[in-house]
Formats: sequence, structure tokens, C-alpha cells
Amino acid sequence: MSTNRNMRAGAPSQEEIRRQNLGALLRFVHERGQISRAELTSELGLNRSTIGALTADLTEAGLVTEEAPRETGRAGRPSLVVRAMSESIYAYAVSVEVDQIRVARIGLGGVLLDQRSIPRPRGSIAGTIDPITTFIKQMAGEGRCVGAGIAVCGMVRREDGMVHLSPYLGGAVDEPIADSLRERLPELLPQVAVANVADLCALAEHTRGVAAGCDNFIYMYGDVGVGAGIVAGGHRVTGHGGYGGEVGHMVVNPVGRPCGCGSKGCWETEIGEHTLLKLAQSTDIGAQAVLAVVDRASRGDHIAQAAVRQVGDWLGFGVANLVNIFNPELVIFGGTLRDVYLASAAQVRSKLNSIALAATREHVRLRTPALGSDGALIGAAELAFQQLLNDPLA
Amino acid sequence: MSTNRNMRAGAPSQEEIRRQNLGALLRFVHERGQISRAELTSELGLNRSTIGALTADLTEAGLVTEEAPRETGRAGRPSLVVRAMSESIYAYAVSVEVDQIRVARIGLGGVLLDQRSIPRPRGSIAGTIDPITTFIKQMAGEGRCVGAGIAVCGMVRREDGMVHLSPYLGGAVDEPIADSLRERLPELLPQVAVANVADLCALAEHTRGVAAGCDNFIYMYGDVGVGAGIVAGGHRVTGHGGYGGEVGHMVVNPVGRPCGCGSKGCWETEIGEHTLLKLAQSTDIGAQAVLAVVDRASRGDHIAQAAVRQVGDWLGFGVANLVNIFNPELVIFGGTLRDVYLASAAQVRSKLNSIALAATREHVRLRTPALGSDGALIGAAELAFQQLLNDPLA
Repeated sequence: MSTNRNMRAGAPSQEEIRRQNLGALLRFVHERGQISRAELTSELGLNRSTIGALTADLTEAGLVTEEAPRETGRAGRPSLVVRAMSESIYAYAVSVEVDQIRVARIGLGGVLLDQRSIPRPRGSIAGTIDPITTFIKQMAGEGRCVGAGIAVCGMVRREDGMVHLSPYLGGAVDEPIADSLRERLPELLPQVAVANVADLCALAEHTRGVAAGCDNFIYMYGDVGVGAGIVAGGHRVTGHGGYGGEVGHMVVNPVGRPCGCGSKGCWETEIGEHTLLKLAQSTDIGAQAVLAVVDRASRGDHIAQAAVRQVGDWLGFGVANLVNIFNPELVIFGGTLRDVYLASAAQVRSKLNSIALAATREHVRLRTPALGSDGALIGAAELAFQQLLNDPLA
Repeated sequence: MSTNRNMRAGAPSQEEIRRQNLGALLRFVHERGQISRAELTSELGLNRSTIGALTADLTEAGLVTEEAPRETGRAGRPSLVVRAMSESIYAYAVSVEVDQIRVARIGLGGVLLDQRSIPRPRGSIAGTIDPITTFIKQMAGEGRCVGAGIAVCGMVRREDGMVHLSPYLGGAVDEPIADSLRERLPELLPQVAVANVADLCALAEHTRGVAAGCDNFIYMYGDVGVGAGIVAGGHRVTGHGGYGGEVGHMVVNPVGRPCGCGSKGCWETEIGEHTLLKLAQSTDIGAQAVLAVVDRASRGDHIAQAAVRQVGDWLGFGVANLVNIFNPELVIFGGTLRDVYLASAAQVRSKLNSIALAATREHVRLRTPALGSDGALIGAAELAFQQLLNDPLA
């Protein structure tokens, strides 16, 4: 049963139907990289001549190409294969993280064509515009750029893409990062969109990763802070203003530590990098330091082992709460939580089993991202491709 | 940006378009009770002759009727008003609660035509079938019954409507309540559907209550247990198996009381009826006892006041967590939580403000249900009407 508010009221016009079909076809090609005409016919439920006409339109627009398949081993004339023009239709993907800035050029079909990174300059998020601009200019390629997508570890207002608050990015408040970048590169970037890193990692894994075909899942992204990209019933949960998924500020320990947000006992005060590193008596910071702690634990260091176990217990505790709320089929651990989860999977599963209801946790799989740390970039590119996929010939 | 999995791939046929338009038109009439042809033309984005033809089809099927409007005071020929045939097209709505069983007959348009209730028989949920069957037979009316919807305060498996576990309903495990009722009344009930009471209250308030037009909201339903009906981005959050929204088992107090689920410190151990009544030194149980405590508090009874304040603090604490996760625009307090919230609104708001992030709570309104305790019945009827609304002439 669906809710009634999002129903399409009237019927679509011929032009809308064509746009819808072109978008659906291009989306299949984009998600699979390549797909045969026969598969498109069956997936889209359209007849062969319609598929032929739509493919011809997309080919003429330079978005796809058709070619004979490799040897199929089957009798009969083989179906033409439709491929995304990944080399010539591309987006820039930017990931602004606590430790570093990464910029990539990603082709239609999700192909990583080029990538650069530098440590993030200290100070506000505004200071990241220069290096991002430089990278994009360096990577400029032939063909057509659809725009840029930016992943930030901060809260992003849906309405206008303002980065509302990001305590770990120099405390940015209402930074217009998308507008700033667009103004610097008006000729290279037809559009710039921005979203939260956990939401974009979830989008990437949903499109071409471990969550493909999965309608109810949670992507936990952690570094110093913790957030979630949540998909429920096939739809992203982003909330009224776009600030949903702030699971790191779910209070799990009412007598716990003060949190940067002003509250105390927030989940991220128990499972964030700072706590793990402090418990493990590490003097370093950042993702490499987390890896070092996990490595020490695996080699038998008791202090590191105790730290990992404690953080793993709290990780499982909070995941159990989310499982009771969302009844997902999959929870993905990304960012530095990937390594923490791998080192404490037994604690996480044990807490989940002792806290979550049998019915809500029954089918939950716990996994790491199929796209690894590329997820933020792939997701940022997906964001930039949405407009093209919604209306390929606009 | 929508996810890509739920996209309609191919274009709809003429027959699908007609069914879609008939459903959309009937849904407007059902939600509003009555609506003019002019409003339908504008809301559906269809031309007047199409609206006329669709209305004629629905009139012929006995679902709606058309009549001249009352005096409009405006010049020109007034637009005909389309009304739901509420007296002759109806559903049975059943609510199986901890204290009582309620059964109603509800007409298309959401009109409560008749209602009965009795205290719930002790023992398993199977023992409720007899009184429900009796009530339905007593209320049988003229016209066409589309079926029955059942609201239960338990977890309901989406796949087949089995009531999976309901510790406060005699510990029902996999009770086929819908099938049992259907088998008892095969001629009266063409279909029987069942869902969780919080989900159905949310559906009712979304369709014709305080959440109308609201795409991100949480309906908190509380009695002995606590659950939530959640709508995010206009879509219901029910999870992979249908068990989502079990917010009462979010652990809020790791050092708290044992919960019936086997865990401890669950939210419902802090805000459920049993705790309030115990804190208030009440020896009664049930909704009337909760009202009595709230009444004592309002008349200056210190013990009752302290109990209400403590429960209100925990209510606000958990709501703050949900607000950080969902960034809703509205939280509704129903069941006995309605009265607890009204008596402790200051505590709830204060905790919300001190725990939730400024951005996620910025636009949150806290409200009580517009439909009061009828929500469960109205929602159960909505469930029963879905099939008709999706395909009115089937």
C-alpha cells in the first residue's frame, strides 16, 4: 500500500512518456555499463522497435553506442549491445572529508576515469574551493561534462544545497560550497549539486554496490563523526529539510561524554574515531591511526583489543536500535567504521542479537561497502548524473 | 532525487491510464468527502470532458454521486459537486487493543456509520474472533462492503498479514487473524487486511487528519507498549518484513529496567503505561488509570506530578533521538501518550531542544491526533479501501 500524496494524478502526455522511456533506458545502461537490446526489451517491457528507436535517439545524442556482442555461443543472430559513452560523457565528483579532499572524473556508467587527492586545508570549508578548482581544471577532458557532485561530511539543506553545519570541517555554517564552485568554473560546470557523504555512499551502493536491488538498508558512515544514509521501501530517508540520518547524535548513553553538538552521550562519542584512538592510547589522528589500532589489536595488543571491543559493543548497541526502527535487510559499515566493524564483528552481532527484536533483525546482513572508499565519489557522480538520467535529451 | 529501483520502466497502456485516472479521481473524492468538478479538473490536470467521463463511470458503478452545489454566491454556472456514496460503499474497521476491541462500519469518504466495543477477552488474540464476528453481523448494512481492515498492537508481517508477536495480546505468535475472520464471514468480507495500529493511525492522520499534506512525520502510539507509524518523504517506513517502527524497543537507558522483549532499558520501559502508573502509585491499569494520574497531576498531586514529569522527560529524550534520525516536520502523540504528552509538553519540548540538533528540530511541530482515538478505526478502514481506490471498477 502506498501513501496517497505522491501519486501521479493525471496521465502523462506522449512527450512525457518518451522522456520517461529514454530516461529508463539510459538508466539501465548507466547502471549496468552495457546491456543487450534483448535485455532492455524485457526489462522495460517495451517492444523491439520502440527500444530500437529510443536507442537510436540516445546514440545520436552521443550518450550510448551500439556494437555487436562478443561470441555468445548461442545460435541465432545475437542482440546488439548498448554501451554507455563513458569516455566522453562524464561528471566531476568531489569528496570533502575530515582528512582529505578527493576529486575524480567519472564517466557515464560509473567509470572512474581520473582521480586526485590532497590533505584538507585547515580552516573553513570555503578554503577547499581553491584546490578543488585546480584539480578540476587539471583533469578537464574531451567530451561533455554534465556537472559536479559534492559529498560533504556535514548537514546539507535540501532546498539549496547549503552546508548547514559541519563541526569537523572547521565549523562551517551555511557555506554555499556548490554556488562558489559553480561561480569559479561556469564554463566547465553546467550544474553543481551537494549532499551528505553518508547519503551519497548509500546512493552509490544502491546503484552499483552491495545494496543493489535492496529496498531497505542503512549505510553507516563514520570518521570523527557518524552519520547514516538510509533507504526505506526503496526511497531515501532525508527528512523535511534534508537533515535526516543524523544517527551519530542519537543519545545512547545518558551518562556519557559531552558531544560537540552540545548534548552528551551521543552515539558518535562512543564509536567515533576520537574515542577509539583515546581508548587505544594512540597519539595519532585520522583514518591511518584507526587502521593502526585495528592492526595492533589483530597482533594481540591488549589495550588496542579492549578499545576495539568497547567501541564494537557500542556500535552493535546503536545498530540494534536502528534495526528496531527500520527493520532493514542490510547494514553497511563505511568510512573508518569499515575497519572498526571488521575488527569487532563478533561484538556487533552479539549486541544486535541481544538487543534487537528477533523479528526486526531476522534477515539483517551486516556488510562492508562493495565500492570501498570510492563510494563517496561514485555517489557524488550519481548526484551529478541525475538530471541527465531524468531527461536525457534536454 | 529519487532512487532508481521503483521507477516505472515502460510507459502505461491506455487501460492502465484510465484505471490510474479513475483511482486518482475516486481518491480525491474519498479524501475530501466531496469535491467540485472544477477542483477535480485543476487537481488532476485533466480536461473537463475527461473528468466528466470518469465521473460518469464512477457514478454508474455506484461509487459517487453528483449534485448541484449549495449557493456559491459567485456568478456563472456552478460546478457540479461529486460526493462519495458513503452510506452504500463501506468497510468494516477493527481495532484490537490491550483494553478493548472496537469494530466500526465506515463509509467511503471516511464516514463513521456505526461503532461497537467491548473489553478485550483475556487470552490469545484468537479469542477476539468471536466478538468481532458478532459485531460485524450486527452492523451489516445495505450496499456494498469492500472488506475489513484490522489494527493490532503487535508486529504484522507484511507478506501475509500474520500477527507475529504481541506480548500484550496474550503473547500471540503467528496468529492468522485476517484469515480466521475471512473464513468466518466469507460472504460479508471479500478481503481482510491487517496492520500495526501505529502505522494505521499514521495513515489515517495522513489521509484526513493533522498530517494531511505532510511528507515527513512520526505518529507515536503508546499504551502498555510503544510503537511508531513513520512517514518519510511521503512514503511509509515499514521495513523489509513489515516490522519497522518498533521505537518502543530503542534502548534509551542502558542501565534501565528489564523489558518484556528480553532486553533492558527499552524506551517503553520508561514511557509505557505500567511505568507511569507505578511511579504514580496507582493500583489501577489501563487508559482510564492513565487519565486519572494526569488528572491528579493537574490538581496538584505531587506524586502524580513527579511521575508525569519523569515520563515526560523520557518521552522527550526518545523523541529527540527520532528527530535526529528522521528530521520530521511533525510528531503526533496518540493512544495514552496523547494525555501523557499534554500533561508534560514542557518537559518533552525542553528535552527535545537540549538533545536534538538545531537543524533537525527546527521545524518540528508536536501535536495530538486530529482524529483522536478514532484514528485506529479510520486507518483500518483506509487499509480496506486501498484495493478499491487502486482500481475502482475491478
